[in-house]
Amino acid sequence: MQPDNAGKPIRCKAAVSKAAGQPLEMEEVEVAPPRAHEVRVRIICTSLCHTDITFWRMKDFPAMFPSILGHEAIGVVESVGDHVHEVGVGDAVVPVFLPQCGECADCVSARSNICSALPYRPGVMPRDGTTRFSLAATGEPVHSFLCVSSFAEYTVVDVAHLVKLDVVGPAPALPPEKACLLSCGVTTGVGATWKVAAVEPGSTVAVFGLGAVGLAVAQGAKMRGAKRIIGVDVNPDKFEIGKKMGITDFVNPNDIAEKTAVSEGWGKTVVLGVDGSLAPISVPSFDIMRGRSVTGSLFGGIKPKDDIPVLAHKYLDKELELDEFITHQVGFEDINRAFDLLQQGRCLRCIIWMDDGAKENGALA
Amino acid sequence: MQPDNAGKPIRCKAAVSKAAGQPLEMEEVEVAPPRAHEVRVRIICTSLCHTDITFWRMKDFPAMFPSILGHEAIGVVESVGDHVHEVGVGDAVVPVFLPQCGECADCVSARSNICSALPYRPGVMPRDGTTRFSLAATGEPVHSFLCVSSFAEYTVVDVAHLVKLDVVGPAPALPPEKACLLSCGVTTGVGATWKVAAVEPGSTVAVFGLGAVGLAVAQGAKMRGAKRIIGVDVNPDKFEIGKKMGITDFVNPNDIAEKTAVSEGWGKTVVLGVDGSLAPISVPSFDIMRGRSVTGSLFGGIKPKDDIPVLAHKYLDKELELDEFITHQVGFEDINRAFDLLQQGRCLRCIIWMDDGAKENGALA
Repeated sequence: MQPDNAGKPIRCKAAVSKAAGQPLEMEEVEVAPPRAHEVRVRIICTSLCHTDITFWRMKDFPAMFPSILGHEAIGVVESVGDHVHEVGVGDAVVPVFLPQCGECADCVSARSNICSALPYRPGVMPRDGTTRFSLAATGEPVHSFLCVSSFAEYTVVDVAHLVKLDVVGPAPALPPEKACLLSCGVTTGVGATWKVAAVEPGSTVAVFGLGAVGLAVAQGAKMRGAKRIIGVDVNPDKFEIGKKMGITDFVNPNDIAEKTAVSEGWGKTVVLGVDGSLAPISVPSFDIMRGRSVTGSLFGGIKPKDDIPVLAHKYLDKELELDEFITHQVGFEDINRAFDLLQQGRCLRCIIWMDDGAKENGALA
Repeated sequence: MQPDNAGKPIRCKAAVSKAAGQPLEMEEVEVAPPRAHEVRVRIICTSLCHTDITFWRMKDFPAMFPSILGHEAIGVVESVGDHVHEVGVGDAVVPVFLPQCGECADCVSARSNICSALPYRPGVMPRDGTTRFSLAATGEPVHSFLCVSSFAEYTVVDVAHLVKLDVVGPAPALPPEKACLLSCGVTTGVGATWKVAAVEPGSTVAVFGLGAVGLAVAQGAKMRGAKRIIGVDVNPDKFEIGKKMGITDFVNPNDIAEKTAVSEGWGKTVVLGVDGSLAPISVPSFDIMRGRSVTGSLFGGIKPKDDIPVLAHKYLDKELELDEFITHQVGFEDINRAFDLLQQGRCLRCIIWMDDGAKENGALA
């Protein structure tokens, strides 16, 4: 059953990024109804990932202004466009920046998570290249971001970018702010140990950078039986939280001279995340000649629709720690405070609640 | 039974490299008897690998002068030092630049071929850091090269660097000039497809550079069931020989604009061989972010003592092509001609026979 607004635009609040590095501005926006294969989602809560900051700081393409950032979230289906059968009104859904059409050569292969049917198109919806957002006051189009744009009360997401999660609800089910974390950062880190590095029991893993992704790598390495998990960060404050996440040893690179950390012969380096400068990675040819490898991965090799539900269940089975990642929570009107906290390295994940009421009871309604 | 010369120096001919890029000079050298864990080997034939040329051209460390280059060879054990039980006088042996002690953590692991017990020491024997060579006329020490130094009638090799091959002899056994090829280049290329890339049946493999190593990659990819094997070389003359080795498609990089050749999501790049400049490899971060990987390998991931005998049998079983790699053969006194041919890109492997008689009958005696 489609709701009253189905097929009509919705006016709601959104935090709009209007210029590189400038505070987001709370605006009334119009969110067009979903077209074919699209779903309009009411966001319950979203969290700030460092990739939002990377793009928010970027002055040039692929950054675009005005835009609605945000790509780590959970919401509820408000209405669906034609040909959407996978989710229905009222379903809890996690939007993800990486699509999974389920049918292309990459989606059907176990070796890849890079869906080739819907390549990323900056600022627009993946199928028709237009945006569903505009400023209510002027009608000016507002770009979307990473096919998610969760810094808005409502957004429109292609169904290939949505993961349905049946287990979301107040505790002892999966509280929405925990489910939200599975949308990007934590899943990327855990996925890298599972899908890319394929960490073996008894092995040693070094994690460079103990933000949320790095700590999720530690979590994943621990889940896979790593014996030593060495956390590397210039901020010694990260050690306490690191210990809770499975880090066994802490190294401050400012304190050491010898920086090779990867075993000759079989050592694997896995590169995660987006470097804003897109600078090339320089690999010493002598080092790599002796059997080391460098592997990249997007989203830690995770196939969203297949793997995020698995991680949700691992949380419910107490195999995966999520609670400790949530260091701060704010209301939507305070979203710029989340940017301040993450830039200062003072938070792992700051949950941004669209409606403070939802925060109190974990409700989706 | 040790021969008459056991424990005494042997005077013989060697092609000595005295200055970067200058023709080798045939000199009488004294080859000291093998010390503990060492074996003196009479070289039957050797071949020129491009790594010899890389070091021969190098003006500075790790190049050293005078030295005896050469690291792709086959020979017969002349005498053995203390504690050598693995090979005996008269055994056919292939010396290899990479040791396999068989006991260190790396040798006992299936994941590595980089023996950690005997790290490489430029110019000298791996255990005691001295050389067994000197100029007969002056007594001046002559450096060894890659623990092999096969451009001499006799050489001394640590037993960890020797592979015993029981199947060497005149056809239908493994002729020495074919066995010689398994000492470095062909094994590196085949090994890379087998041990490092783990090429899967039906896959597509692109080979950059169709020298002996590249063509051996093609051979290996074909043996592993690759469907398309794309040869990339600026020299169109390589296509004919490439077809015999399994190349199905030929690309001249000068003819094309788009040079990405590795699949997103799971494409593997395997780097083989030594770049003389040791320049870092620059990997575009955006490319690698999307799931590609870059892996190095020394000797194609091959464990010499375990894997070279397997390849010898694959030749005898007609699964591995070796004959086509031998494009030229010269006597020892014409060794500089082999350097000319390889530098001009006119040969794959030039076999250098220490004694022209051996060439005629494939004999080891």
